Amino acid sequence: MTLTVGVIGGGQLARMMLPPAVALGVRVRVLAETADGSATIAPHEVGDYLDVETVLRFASGVDVVTFDHEHVPQPVLARLVAAGVPVRPGPHALEFAQDKLRMRERVSELGLPSPAWARVTDERGLQEFLDAHGGAGVLKTARGGYDGRGVRVVRSAADAVDWFAALSEDGNPGALLVEELVDFRRELAQQVARRPSGEIAAYPLVETVQRGGVCAEVVAPAPGTTADEEARAIAETIARELDVTGMLAVELFETRDGRVLVNELAMRPHNSGHWSIEGAVTSQFEQHLRAVLDLPLGSTRAREPVTVMVNILGGPTTGTLDERYPAALSAPDVKLHLYGKEPRPGRKIGHATAWGADREEVAARARAVTDSFR
Amino acid sequence: MTLTVGVIGGGQLARMMLPPAVALGVRVRVLAETADGSATIAPHEVGDYLDVETVLRFASGVDVVTFDHEHVPQPVLARLVAAGVPVRPGPHALEFAQDKLRMRERVSELGLPSPAWARVTDERGLQEFLDAHGGAGVLKTARGGYDGRGVRVVRSAADAVDWFAALSEDGNPGALLVEELVDFRRELAQQVARRPSGEIAAYPLVETVQRGGVCAEVVAPAPGTTADEEARAIAETIARELDVTGMLAVELFETRDGRVLVNELAMRPHNSGHWSIEGAVTSQFEQHLRAVLDLPLGSTRAREPVTVMVNILGGPTTGTLDERYPAALSAPDVKLHLYGKEPRPGRKIGHATAWGADREEVAARARAVTDSFR
Repeated sequence: MTLTVGVIGGGQLARMMLPPAVALGVRVRVLAETADGSATIAPHEVGDYLDVETVLRFASGVDVVTFDHEHVPQPVLARLVAAGVPVRPGPHALEFAQDKLRMRERVSELGLPSPAWARVTDERGLQEFLDAHGGAGVLKTARGGYDGRGVRVVRSAADAVDWFAALSEDGNPGALLVEELVDFRRELAQQVARRPSGEIAAYPLVETVQRGGVCAEVVAPAPGTTADEEARAIAETIARELDVTGMLAVELFETRDGRVLVNELAMRPHNSGHWSIEGAVTSQFEQHLRAVLDLPLGSTRAREPVTVMVNILGGPTTGTLDERYPAALSAPDVKLHLYGKEPRPGRKIGHATAWGADREEVAARARAVTDSFR
Repeated sequence: MTLTVGVIGGGQLARMMLPPAVALGVRVRVLAETADGSATIAPHEVGDYLDVETVLRFASGVDVVTFDHEHVPQPVLARLVAAGVPVRPGPHALEFAQDKLRMRERVSELGLPSPAWARVTDERGLQEFLDAHGGAGVLKTARGGYDGRGVRVVRSAADAVDWFAALSEDGNPGALLVEELVDFRRELAQQVARRPSGEIAAYPLVETVQRGGVCAEVVAPAPGTTADEEARAIAETIARELDVTGMLAVELFETRDGRVLVNELAMRPHNSGHWSIEGAVTSQFEQHLRAVLDLPLGSTRAREPVTVMVNILGGPTTGTLDERYPAALSAPDVKLHLYGKEPRPGRKIGHATAWGADREEVAARARAVTDSFR
């Protein structure tokens, strides 16, 4: 008998589950949005994850369903569960990754440190929050945002007229989330894996460098932090209390006074964990497969003093990817990962990972490869 | 444009090319002997590699043809070349991996160190060789042997009556190869990769431990050897002079007086290089893809003081593989690789790799995992 993991979503996260599946002797099967999706390098079918019948048919051929993204609607997830399909993470956990307002409510209930936040349904409520928090805030749509989309810094309720109008126009009974503008020192991310049977494994805390709301670089482990234990406790609490199965990433702000605050959650492999392919004993992609199959978790130990992952965002402004490829492969001691995606401005089309003893030397080595695609 | 590497043969070597293909952004397509072959986890078709039309049709959909094994007959290879298909390694190189007598002739022509050997066509010739070399020798069929098959230690020509009879019965104009029984200290293996454009990259020399003619363990780098430079020079000479492209493994005897002698050649990824998946910056499988695509070769540097790979030979004598699987995955800091093959006595169905500072500690850790499948 060979176990098959069904992955809904054909992006690079599904794609990168394929190599560890080969090693573990399990199979990955992908439900991809389009025939040219990144993960169509794996066995796949093309179908609409919004369509219940498509998803049920896909699920009938696999042992467990997991995800490349968090966009599968709750009614579709509920039908999978009703049909007896193991869905990991389950809908009851995923809703906190799908809805930032529900996440904020739940994380606050758990007593975990968060930025000040409020649920706002109109401009007046937003203005009150801004007035109480230094005149600025980060406004977020509860659903649908990623990589900086659905997120806006506002300094007046007038900055959000269009979003409130959209809320009322489509009769959406929802609200927006506003958070204080945290004066953070840097951003961190804590990943943990959790099995249905309860076992949890935590990765080293990492530093994430964002540019324009998009992750640009990750340094693992995060240098010079005293927040390791707290970050780990936060992520383990969230994983346990929200009954997350598979990989969980908790994005954190590190404040100037050394505290950490929960920023966002992702319940799947995450860009902040790509370093682990070469840098940890067990990659986040292998760990995700182990976790959703309820197999023993692997060691999360870092193999190197420092590992740096740099994203390739967009593609060459002149010439083609293919022309740049040999130069990128020539760089010594850097591992290149391409996702099989057509370059578009700002699009994540791959990443490069290097490791060694010195952060700056290692980062420069990885950047030399990503720069070769500019 | 996405490059596609066509691999003839559906075994574990083709299978293990899939993970680096995912990272490199290239595609692997396999011509598998059977629908349940190890490499059918990759995109594949099932077909007979002895059939020219099947192989030509397969090749028409790929950018380069390479191999999981050396069994594709020369007439089939010649047709591929005639059709303009890049075949790497080419037929003119592969013949020396297919025919041990031709290999011995060529290696001797190159002045490289070999055991004493002779081409023998009858019992009288064999007996003369044995008499001249201490009364014993290793008799080999020129073609078709692997993992100890087609190899026999003989102490008298009478031990080979059946093989000579088979030679004459099928009208085969061939001969047998006899080699002196080398009193070796241990066996070593030297891998190099070579691109069509000439670039060569050599891996660290490794020690291979054979049991019953089958590779049981590999230790990388080979501890306590002074033969590194000579082994590397031998492998580079063979790669260059035989115009090998892709991975080349040269199996070597280390004699008690510290010399190395060429034992066998393999022109593909090889069991002696599985350690490189975790233990080297560039695995042999990634390197093979780079080499056959004529892309820049990657660093062959060992990442750890010592890496030990242990084969899983056969399967549990009681119970199933699935029952042993969770225990095998529980071992800390060991990477398990399963090939998706049904266990049969002595069959290679997977391997385990561990690394660290001390050979014995590392080997014990890896063996604990392979033992869990007994």
